[in-house]
Amino acid sequence: MEQNLPHTISLLTRTPAALNALLRDLPEAWTLRNEGGNSWSAFDIVGHLIHGERTDWMPRARMVLQLGETQTFEPFDRWGHLGESQGKSLGQLLDEFVRLRSENLRELRALNLEQKRLEQRGRHPALGVVTLSELLATWAVHDLTHLHQISRVMAYQYREAVGPWSEYLGVLQCVGHSSPE
Amino acid sequence: MEQNLPHTISLLTRTPAALNALLRDLPEAWTLRNEGGNSWSAFDIVGHLIHGERTDWMPRARMVLQLGETQTFEPFDRWGHLGESQGKSLGQLLDEFVRLRSENLRELRALNLEQKRLEQRGRHPALGVVTLSELLATWAVHDLTHLHQISRVMAYQYREAVGPWSEYLGVLQCVGHSSPE
Repeated sequence: MEQNLPHTISLLTRTPAALNALLRDLPEAWTLRNEGGNSWSAFDIVGHLIHGERTDWMPRARMVLQLGETQTFEPFDRWGHLGESQGKSLGQLLDEFVRLRSENLRELRALNLEQKRLEQRGRHPALGVVTLSELLATWAVHDLTHLHQISRVMAYQYREAVGPWSEYLGVLQCVGHSSPE
Repeated sequence: MEQNLPHTISLLTRTPAALNALLRDLPEAWTLRNEGGNSWSAFDIVGHLIHGERTDWMPRARMVLQLGETQTFEPFDRWGHLGESQGKSLGQLLDEFVRLRSENLRELRALNLEQKRLEQRGRHPALGVVTLSELLATWAVHDLTHLHQISRVMAYQYREAVGPWSEYLGVLQCVGHSSPE
């Protein structure tokens, strides 16, 4: 389906509450462990979502509306969450994500975007010309990508504990699909 | 890590609230659509989780504790959710999942399982000998498998709306990993 702004906003509204319900006060054995090496834990992923709220989605949307294709988006810093998360608890990060998402959605709603403005074009540093509608759809699917990743990273912690069932559990077969943004 | 019963229960406790926060009152364009063919929608998946609460996890745990390896588990019906969901709204299914999970966890806690009993063995119809500890770990990872699946099924609905960003969104590269249970 095409991007539908009320549907996009419905989903974007729910992600912080869903992550809060899943992760708050969960033992750190679930939330601070990763998939090895410099892969991300659930804690890191919430930090990454916060960094996106600050530097990615609405700043890029404003740039499309104000400058169109004339100016290229700032590249997104995939390690920017390290600064966001330092010295904070997961509870603090979850609170911050709720607050920033809520502010960003208030701004998005206030723009009262009509179809014609959703078709306005901007310039991505690697992907070239993109539309505002694609940017907003990506914001929602980016939430789902990281919900998908969090469920996989947490499942990984029990990959041996499940014994012979591991072959039946799809999330344990998932190899991950990391990429830049 | 090994299965840790308090950690397992922490996760099992949170899944219904997380799904509730994510899915309740979300437009049906997100919750009733699937990935084509006879694949599952988010609505179907919640029905499947309910069916597991009724027929899979605690019934099998009781069987291990009472009968050990002498009796094989009933095979789980992967299409059993069709009966559970018929004529119901997603809101009703979410309420039912909350209620059944809460009852099952009350029963699990009341068993006061110690390490020795967690090592008790049962017999799976396809996998052969399994332990109670593995069964309980699988219950938790099964939740995560379906959270992983729900995020993928929902993302699929916007696979075209995101335009050129699709190559960057891991969840859109996931091929799914369905299998029996």
